[in-house]
Amino acid sequence: MRAPAGFLLSGVRAGIRKKRPDLAVILAEDGANAAAVFTKNRFQAAPVVLARRALARSGGRVKAAVVNAGCANAITGGEGLAAAKRVQARAAEVFDCPKEEVFLASTGVIGVVLPDAKVRAALPLANARLSRSGLEAASVAILTTDVGPKTAQAAFTWGGRKGRVVGFAKGAGMIHPDMATMLAFVMTDAAASPAFLKAALKEAVDASFNAISVDGDTSTNDTVLLLASGKLGNGSPASADDESAAETACFRRALTEVCASLARMIARDGEGATRLMRVEVTGASSREDARRALHAIATSPLVKTALHGGDPNWGRILAAVGRSGARLVPRKVSLRVGGLTLVANGEPADYREADAAKIFAREEVPITVDLGAGSASASLLSCDLGHDYVSLNADYRS
Amino acid sequence: MRAPAGFLLSGVRAGIRKKRPDLAVILAEDGANAAAVFTKNRFQAAPVVLARRALARSGGRVKAAVVNAGCANAITGGEGLAAAKRVQARAAEVFDCPKEEVFLASTGVIGVVLPDAKVRAALPLANARLSRSGLEAASVAILTTDVGPKTAQAAFTWGGRKGRVVGFAKGAGMIHPDMATMLAFVMTDAAASPAFLKAALKEAVDASFNAISVDGDTSTNDTVLLLASGKLGNGSPASADDESAAETACFRRALTEVCASLARMIARDGEGATRLMRVEVTGASSREDARRALHAIATSPLVKTALHGGDPNWGRILAAVGRSGARLVPRKVSLRVGGLTLVANGEPADYREADAAKIFAREEVPITVDLGAGSASASLLSCDLGHDYVSLNADYRS
Repeated sequence: MRAPAGFLLSGVRAGIRKKRPDLAVILAEDGANAAAVFTKNRFQAAPVVLARRALARSGGRVKAAVVNAGCANAITGGEGLAAAKRVQARAAEVFDCPKEEVFLASTGVIGVVLPDAKVRAALPLANARLSRSGLEAASVAILTTDVGPKTAQAAFTWGGRKGRVVGFAKGAGMIHPDMATMLAFVMTDAAASPAFLKAALKEAVDASFNAISVDGDTSTNDTVLLLASGKLGNGSPASADDESAAETACFRRALTEVCASLARMIARDGEGATRLMRVEVTGASSREDARRALHAIATSPLVKTALHGGDPNWGRILAAVGRSGARLVPRKVSLRVGGLTLVANGEPADYREADAAKIFAREEVPITVDLGAGSASASLLSCDLGHDYVSLNADYRS
Repeated sequence: MRAPAGFLLSGVRAGIRKKRPDLAVILAEDGANAAAVFTKNRFQAAPVVLARRALARSGGRVKAAVVNAGCANAITGGEGLAAAKRVQARAAEVFDCPKEEVFLASTGVIGVVLPDAKVRAALPLANARLSRSGLEAASVAILTTDVGPKTAQAAFTWGGRKGRVVGFAKGAGMIHPDMATMLAFVMTDAAASPAFLKAALKEAVDASFNAISVDGDTSTNDTVLLLASGKLGNGSPASADDESAAETACFRRALTEVCASLARMIARDGEGATRLMRVEVTGASSREDARRALHAIATSPLVKTALHGGDPNWGRILAAVGRSGARLVPRKVSLRVGGLTLVANGEPADYREADAAKIFAREEVPITVDLGAGSASASLLSCDLGHDYVSLNADYRS
């Protein structure tokens, strides 16, 4: 997969991790308009603090994004911030731009200060290797426990021109409830204002990354960055006011499609995951309540292990809903998996166990719970919990 | 262990489960004053509904407690309620008492109606087997995935007489966040009013069972029952007003001690658990905030698997705290394990990794997080998450 016009990428080994590439660079040749979404965790990693600040100071302009794996540089205090600043300063020299146009992101172990000398020393090599086909190397260099790289693309038409949205991401542990860090970088050749990009990205993230994670359930480093090079020449950059305009609909749809593809890959690649569940909660008295119920289901080890075992043990699902704090009317509650009704009006329905087992054996199990308390709804994609998850995480650091 | 004076117990096989005893009876020979604490789950199992109702109607009197394993009879609608009522009615005949003096409790799979004919048919045998030494058989008959039975006792002096508190319990899956059902039955020979027992039990449960589970995080069937036969002859039954009286302090301490022992056994026996963590959150701006942070730590699969691996990966602990929603001041946050400070004022402290690893290798790991935001605190006992948990729960029903 090639980057859109205006972007060069590379992935190299800085030596933070043993024997694996761990440094990715995205260079916007003539700069790019940018928007980003960051973690809501109360502990914001040093690179997140600096990336936020840089975007604010540059007015949404980015020349280079510098991303490392192997060290999150989170909860590292003043020392960690100083290390990140040194990387930013060196990158500004190497990529010949103001410091505030260098966007940082990190993933890896928390509580260890970034070995910034290694990163700084590797930047010239990363610069030398930059190319439009460097996307693959970049997508590999940001991985941690991911099974494999995650890339996605979609086309759009804007102002009579055919443009592209191209993204890559790294997974996030089990997604739920601790994102081990979700990073996603999305590039487009479209010309668009930072304000428009911000609105479009928010819309896309809500329908993708936020639907594999409940709001606020974020690690110290989560970051989604959208960069627009403007090389498409689709007329003057759209302003935020154009957001609803029909002419941007195609672009926004492509952006959401790329984000949704990446989000699905992340969920599918949940550590040790073998099966997904797409949980929908309907009949809630508020969207917040629907999310409460979703969160309880998607984070329940009992539900996740039953899913792993392909066991349609629906009692665990409703027990989780019952303790979630979401308002529900027990005698109106219903539960369906696939097209099969397991519980109707709060009582077990008449169904064949074998039919339920068949649905739970699918790669993606659709689960719908109706709380019988209103008309709000929400949905979420989550994965099972198996032995590989335990193996990966009981021994992550060694 | 023998039951206190006034109580006879038995445990038999009703045939709900394959080849294992699954029915326990506690008989208070001349009746007992009683108090109970029930689940807060919005789905209340049929036996919970009936037990609540019976206690209210009898004014806190219980003659017989009938407890089955193998079937929770939860989310079973009108049919489940009818089945439980039939057991209650038959028990009233067998144990020769009003229906409202029969207390029911169930544990097992959710969504399956209790095969009440089996239970009713086994009641005469359970009656024939009743004895003061039947406590062991009863404590075995209520188990599900527990590694072994859990019993505890303590002595007290009241009104110049030496009495006893004796209890038994069954474990609760992983405790967190889905209690697979926690049942505990505590008997004493003391004479005490239902109102006094209610207050004393609430106090004991808050300091024991509620400290291995965050409030509200309960299954459909959780029940703690306290029975007082009055055989001790310690003067007139205490009223709730005597609660603070010095003369009841010894009894209340014994009750809390028994509950705390049982709670610890439940946590230790968390499915597949090999290691406990005793987590304390201090410096919170409210007790609710402290519990939010506790809950995030104790339910985090990343923290629980790190604990399983004996890995002092403290970043996962603070990342969980950071997303918990609890108010905290990042630059004032500290983290200690055992006596070792790992994070002080929001920055990694100077400690030897080997020392931290040594503490994480303990059977019980003490973890203290100071949020730096106030003076409220709370603590919680929780267990790790290992392969045995996955094995047990991916295949629980087969």
